[in-house]
Amino acid sequence: MTDAIELDLRALVFDVFGTVVDWRSGVISQVAEFARKHVLTAIDPAAFADVWRGHYSPSMEEVRSGRRPFTRLDVLHRESLEKTLATFGVTTASVPADALTQLNLAWHRLDPWPDSVPGLTRLKGRYIIAPLSNGNIRLMLDMAKRAGLPWDAILGAETAQAYKPAPEAYLRTAEILDLPPEQICMVAAHNSDLAAARLCGMRTAFIPRTTEHGHQQTKDLVPEQEWDIVARDMLGLAQKLGCSPD
Amino acid sequence: MTDAIELDLRALVFDVFGTVVDWRSGVISQVAEFARKHVLTAIDPAAFADVWRGHYSPSMEEVRSGRRPFTRLDVLHRESLEKTLATFGVTTASVPADALTQLNLAWHRLDPWPDSVPGLTRLKGRYIIAPLSNGNIRLMLDMAKRAGLPWDAILGAETAQAYKPAPEAYLRTAEILDLPPEQICMVAAHNSDLAAARLCGMRTAFIPRTTEHGHQQTKDLVPEQEWDIVARDMLGLAQKLGCSPD
Repeated sequence: MTDAIELDLRALVFDVFGTVVDWRSGVISQVAEFARKHVLTAIDPAAFADVWRGHYSPSMEEVRSGRRPFTRLDVLHRESLEKTLATFGVTTASVPADALTQLNLAWHRLDPWPDSVPGLTRLKGRYIIAPLSNGNIRLMLDMAKRAGLPWDAILGAETAQAYKPAPEAYLRTAEILDLPPEQICMVAAHNSDLAAARLCGMRTAFIPRTTEHGHQQTKDLVPEQEWDIVARDMLGLAQKLGCSPD
Repeated sequence: MTDAIELDLRALVFDVFGTVVDWRSGVISQVAEFARKHVLTAIDPAAFADVWRGHYSPSMEEVRSGRRPFTRLDVLHRESLEKTLATFGVTTASVPADALTQLNLAWHRLDPWPDSVPGLTRLKGRYIIAPLSNGNIRLMLDMAKRAGLPWDAILGAETAQAYKPAPEAYLRTAEILDLPPEQICMVAAHNSDLAAARLCGMRTAFIPRTTEHGHQQTKDLVPEQEWDIVARDMLGLAQKLGCSPD
């Protein structure tokens, strides 16, 4: 592991779903409320959340492969939601349209891990901080406004017009920041995201989130490469980067 | 003037140079420091700032007309800076390269009008607030970080890949915000910006900045159309939109 003090960083960019916010608990609780309200007893909220999220990567692969023009995540989430409802035997026609629109916005209303806001706030004092998420700008904006995430700007797939782990997502973000990739650190709970960022020349910080997928989680429990930084959480990252409490 | 209470607004987007920050005073003082340091006695800082800014619209017109692919404002500012230096008889080779790079960043280091930060802070409590400036993302980010502008996201020309007053700059911003244009209010000190926003269906708020171009200013002293809102400054806008102090 590189000594953090040796890194000449100017910006930190963050994966968000899983790394900054606990998407699974948030989606489960909002699905549970939806199922209760509309008396959809066939829906197990945790299973529903996992099936919905299961469509995430395949839906972006349509764009990454070039088979589909860039389409923002809210639209992909909505298509995936309809597939997920079908899996649970629910027809979209049987639920009020507005309720589906609202349920799709569950991803805009996710709670951060407890260390995220205080950690980001410390990091912001010394570095540019921005999401580099596959979530679209409005999604990230609503989430930040609700949760108090203190981003300096909202970057990511929609700004870059490319979904991670495509290199364009990282390289265009560096271009927008007008920084060489080595002055940017990608922060993620996912080894694959860091591997893609490293291939583009970015620095890497791994933060394990061992309950992102629930207590039976089997992947991303440990760093799989020698990432530049490994920290227990955002506060640990702030500490390793010399960002003292305000 | 429409009664503000009748407007169903979700987001306010802001012109920045002139409307939120006092670009001219900021550029003048930084040019003065540059001229002093490099003993460039032929440079009158106020005249230099006005010539530099004079290249602003023509440089973007190259992009708007399609003669040039989208090029971010930092690059256009740099080209305009070199033309401006030539006008004042200064060759770029006679000044250290780093000093020119730093001078070009003068636009990243502009002070807000005194009402901007408190006004935006109040408005942020009720609305999404974002710049819709021709300044690029990194420029707006640096400015916001230094001055404490509390944007929810940084939108504008670079995100939309189009320079105001091209309709795409407004329409793509509405698309990114996932809002119909009529739920967005363009806030500007410039009648021409509001006219272009209105043609795209946005609501409009005029804030006069009668010393933007110095005390001899002759344009944009008064609203030239019946804008939806006219306010004395950002605090007045917050008041008209029912945003009370925190």
